[in-house]
Amino acid sequence: MIKALFAASDADWRTYKAALNAAFEKVGLEVDLSRSHAAQEVSYMVYAPSGPLQDFSPYVNCKAVLSLWAGVERIVGNQSLTQPLARMVDPSMAQGMMEYVVAQVLRHHLGMDRYLRGQDGVWRHGEMPPVAQDSPITVLGLGELGRFAGLALSSLGFPVRGWSRTKREVDGIVCYHGDEGLAAALKGTRGIVLLLPATAGTENILNANTLALPAKGAFIVNPGRGTLIDDTALLAAIETGQIGGATLDVFRTEPLPKDHPYWSNPKVTVTPHIAAFTRPDSACDVIAENMRRSEAGEPLLYLVDRKRGY
Amino acid sequence: MIKALFAASDADWRTYKAALNAAFEKVGLEVDLSRSHAAQEVSYMVYAPSGPLQDFSPYVNCKAVLSLWAGVERIVGNQSLTQPLARMVDPSMAQGMMEYVVAQVLRHHLGMDRYLRGQDGVWRHGEMPPVAQDSPITVLGLGELGRFAGLALSSLGFPVRGWSRTKREVDGIVCYHGDEGLAAALKGTRGIVLLLPATAGTENILNANTLALPAKGAFIVNPGRGTLIDDTALLAAIETGQIGGATLDVFRTEPLPKDHPYWSNPKVTVTPHIAAFTRPDSACDVIAENMRRSEAGEPLLYLVDRKRGY
Repeated sequence: MIKALFAASDADWRTYKAALNAAFEKVGLEVDLSRSHAAQEVSYMVYAPSGPLQDFSPYVNCKAVLSLWAGVERIVGNQSLTQPLARMVDPSMAQGMMEYVVAQVLRHHLGMDRYLRGQDGVWRHGEMPPVAQDSPITVLGLGELGRFAGLALSSLGFPVRGWSRTKREVDGIVCYHGDEGLAAALKGTRGIVLLLPATAGTENILNANTLALPAKGAFIVNPGRGTLIDDTALLAAIETGQIGGATLDVFRTEPLPKDHPYWSNPKVTVTPHIAAFTRPDSACDVIAENMRRSEAGEPLLYLVDRKRGY
Repeated sequence: MIKALFAASDADWRTYKAALNAAFEKVGLEVDLSRSHAAQEVSYMVYAPSGPLQDFSPYVNCKAVLSLWAGVERIVGNQSLTQPLARMVDPSMAQGMMEYVVAQVLRHHLGMDRYLRGQDGVWRHGEMPPVAQDSPITVLGLGELGRFAGLALSSLGFPVRGWSRTKREVDGIVCYHGDEGLAAALKGTRGIVLLLPATAGTENILNANTLALPAKGAFIVNPGRGTLIDDTALLAAIETGQIGGATLDVFRTEPLPKDHPYWSNPKVTVTPHIAAFTRPDSACDVIAENMRRSEAGEPLLYLVDRKRGY
C-alpha cells in the first residue's frame, strides 16, 4: 500500500479525493490517499499551494511531489523542497486553453465587440476585417499550451509565429527564440498570445519597447501569467492606439482589485482566471500515471527544472 | 473583344470595376466591361440585385449571368431569366464565414458573454464549460460554406454533425440528410449553425418542433438566410430556456427593424449581415474564371439549378 499525502485545500480535497482514487485504481496502484499521514511514511505528495504546507523537509521518504497546478512559481523557489517536482499538464486544460485562445483571437480579429456592444437597434456595418491569412499572430511560449493553441490558430488559416526562450521547432509555426528572436517574432504582428511561465526571465516581457513592435492596433490575449505584462506600459500603448485591445485572464493580484484601471478601460476585457480549468478526471489520470511511472522506475512526466523555474 | 454588362449598383461599380478588369487580364480575356452596352450585344452579364435590372429578356445573346452574390433567391424565380446563372462562391467568403462561425460557436460554447458583460470590477467565476469534445455541433447545409465551417469546428475538437437535403459525405463530419435525417442531426445537439440556402424547402426549418430537439440550453448561429428560422418559435424557445442563446446575422427584413424583439432580447445577438463579406479581388477571379471557361467551351462553375433554387 503506497502512502500518498494530499496537501492542498479543503475544497481541493472534496474535488479530487474520489477522482484520484479512481485514477489510481485504473492504473493498478494500491494507494492510501490521506491528508494526515505521518511525514516520514509519505511516499508521494499530491500538492497545491492552496493548502498550508510550506515545509517539505520532514518528508524524507517522499519520492515525488506531484503538483495539481500547471504553474509552479509559488513552489519552485522553496528551499525545503528537495524531492522531484512534476507540473500538472492536463490534456483537457490544453484543450480548454486552446478554445479560449481561439475564441479571443477571433473576437479581436473580427472586431466583434462593436457588434456585441451595439444591440441598440442601429444596423451598423463595420469595416471588412482581413482574413486570417493576412493577420499574423505571435504566440509567446511554445510549451504544451502554446504549441496546441498555436497549431489550432494555424489550422484556421492564421500565419502563426512562435517564440520561446530556448530553441524549439514546431511544424506549422514559424519559430523564433532568445532575446534576439523576440523582436522578429513581434515585428508587425496583428495579435500576441501570452502562454509563457512566470519566471525572472519572462517578467514584463511585454513592456514599452516590445509593445511598440506589433502593427498599430494589434491585440493582446494573456491567459498565461500576470507578471508577463508591464501593466503601466500596456495601458499607455492602449491610450495611444498602438495596442487596439487586450483580453487578460491573469493578473499580478487576483482577484483583480475593483479599482484597477483594466476593469474600466473599454479596450480591455478582464476574465477572472477562467481561460483553462483543470478538469479533475483528466488531471488525476496524470497524477496516477506519474505515480505508476515512479513505482516502475520510469522517468516522471513534466518534471520541473528548478533552474529554469518550470 | 467580349462585351460584358455590369448590372448592379453604383456602389458595386466603384468597388468592382478595376478588380474585374484586372481579373479578366489575368486569365487572358479581352473584355469591354460597361454599364451601357446595347442589350443584344451583351455576351455576359455581371449581376447583383442591388441594381435596377429585372428583365433579362432583351439580352438574347447573353451566354451567362454571373452573380456577384452567393444567395440567388431574388433572381432564381425571375421568369425572364433564361440564360445560365452562376452563383458567387468566393473562397475568401468561405474563409470569412468560417471565422465568424468558429468565433460565435466558441463564444456560446464557452459562455463568454457573462464575462464580456461583467466588466464592473466583480471577479466572478463562471461554470466550467464542457470541452469541445463533449459539445456536439450540428451544421445545417453542407455546401461550400457549411463544409468548410464544419471541418474547422471538427479540427478544434467538436463532434460535428452535418445535414443536407440530399445525401452528402464529408470526412470528419457525421452526415445526415432528408426529412428523416433532420431529427437525428438535431437530437441532443449543443449548437446549431445554419448555412442553408433560402428555398421553399428550407423555410422555417427551425420551428417549434425542430427547436425542441437539441439539448436544453443549446445555441443557434445563423449566418445563412433569415427565412430559415420561424422567429416567433425561436423567441418562445428562448423564453422557456430550451434555447440558451442565438447569434443571428440575417433576417427576413434587413436592416432588422429597430423595434424587432431580437434587438432587445439579452439572449439574442444581432450582427448586421457581416458574417461573410465578398472580397472584390477573389470574387472577381471567380467571375473571370467562369467567363474563360465559357469561352473555352468548359462547364461553368457554381451553375444554379433553377428547380432546386441554388
